[in-house]
Amino acid sequence: MSKAKFHASIISLYPELFPGTLGASVIGRGLRENLWSFDTINLRDFGTGKHKQVDDSPAGGGAGLVLRADVLAKAIDFAAPKGDNRKRYLLSPRGKPFTQKLAKELSQSEGVVLICGRFEGVDQRVIEQRDLEEISIGDYILAGGEVGAMVMLEAITRLIPNVLGSNESIIDESFENGLLEYDQYTRPVEFEGQEIPNILTSGNHQKIKQWRDEQSKALTTLRRPDLIKK
Amino acid sequence: MSKAKFHASIISLYPELFPGTLGASVIGRGLRENLWSFDTINLRDFGTGKHKQVDDSPAGGGAGLVLRADVLAKAIDFAAPKGDNRKRYLLSPRGKPFTQKLAKELSQSEGVVLICGRFEGVDQRVIEQRDLEEISIGDYILAGGEVGAMVMLEAITRLIPNVLGSNESIIDESFENGLLEYDQYTRPVEFEGQEIPNILTSGNHQKIKQWRDEQSKALTTLRRPDLIKK
Repeated sequence: MSKAKFHASIISLYPELFPGTLGASVIGRGLRENLWSFDTINLRDFGTGKHKQVDDSPAGGGAGLVLRADVLAKAIDFAAPKGDNRKRYLLSPRGKPFTQKLAKELSQSEGVVLICGRFEGVDQRVIEQRDLEEISIGDYILAGGEVGAMVMLEAITRLIPNVLGSNESIIDESFENGLLEYDQYTRPVEFEGQEIPNILTSGNHQKIKQWRDEQSKALTTLRRPDLIKK
Repeated sequence: MSKAKFHASIISLYPELFPGTLGASVIGRGLRENLWSFDTINLRDFGTGKHKQVDDSPAGGGAGLVLRADVLAKAIDFAAPKGDNRKRYLLSPRGKPFTQKLAKELSQSEGVVLICGRFEGVDQRVIEQRDLEEISIGDYILAGGEVGAMVMLEAITRLIPNVLGSNESIIDESFENGLLEYDQYTRPVEFEGQEIPNILTSGNHQKIKQWRDEQSKALTTLRRPDLIKK
């Protein structure tokens, strides 16, 4: 299939994991309809020596293994030759946090190059010389960057026009207005003795909006005071 | 395969997505060696009517669809009958942030029940009556909770004893000491004219440690001043 307007290139030691969650539901439909596209680059193909080695022990000592600069540089140059202006992200717990705002910006770009880290780290020189931006999906440690790449692409691609059907909405969502979303209810009217709040079935749209706004503010204050400060 | 000491139950409309990234590398090996285990529960099986409907329009109006309380309650009661004391998490951007600290706590527990949200939201009554804790993997919106469940389980299961091989390390990692990790280097000594910093090849372990500590602090101050404050 040809490249879509938004095209992601994913460098990974486990390319067979993709599309993974990106193949399901609306994002998967968008992929099949070529509203977005991706290719994977197997880092192993660029390894050195008979065993296609991609890593080596850390200079200065320490546990684990570090991804070699020369190996990763070759993979990047293959995935994004000169003139390819897509942003290059290295998934890493050291990175700056990935946010909804960045997802929105990237959804309007030509695509991204995503490098899935594994091991203890990546040689700093390739980060500098290939202009990689380290990015983190959250304050926890994963076994590799693959699931982080899926997270980024799911957040980005659902914002590409026509990926979400008319039934889905990107308005009124958490973070869209800097607040968490209000509580939701649906049928049945009574569930285990508990009814839907009267106001929501009152038909008074102004009061409903007011109730939801107050809910959003109260919930955000309780759970995410850091968002309120912003 | 029998249940491991840590067992995850995943409620989802897309159970076929699992294990996904959890099947690869060390986490996948841990799964095959029964160091951890999981089962999936297809939410659709608990839908109502001929079409096994699981959602309905939001009370009070608005876009999108809301997951029904009665349907999800049945799935939860099946996945975790009375006496099952595992924590129940609903993946949701409204949730409290998932952290490395929680991953560590949960890795020492009997397991988790993870509910993968889809649609505009989940009826608030089942959240309250089934004691669901809303949890978020980051400040962005996903198409569904499945990739979030994978993120949580990858972060948790790699901390289960023997999942990481002796070659991998969980010491000196980002967040383990509240700081981001220092820069890493490995062979070759020269890459595109840039050498590994002399100090790292000096053999002076005390100076190397000092250099790395300073690196960690400087990087964290630059990229994540919020972590320094904590």
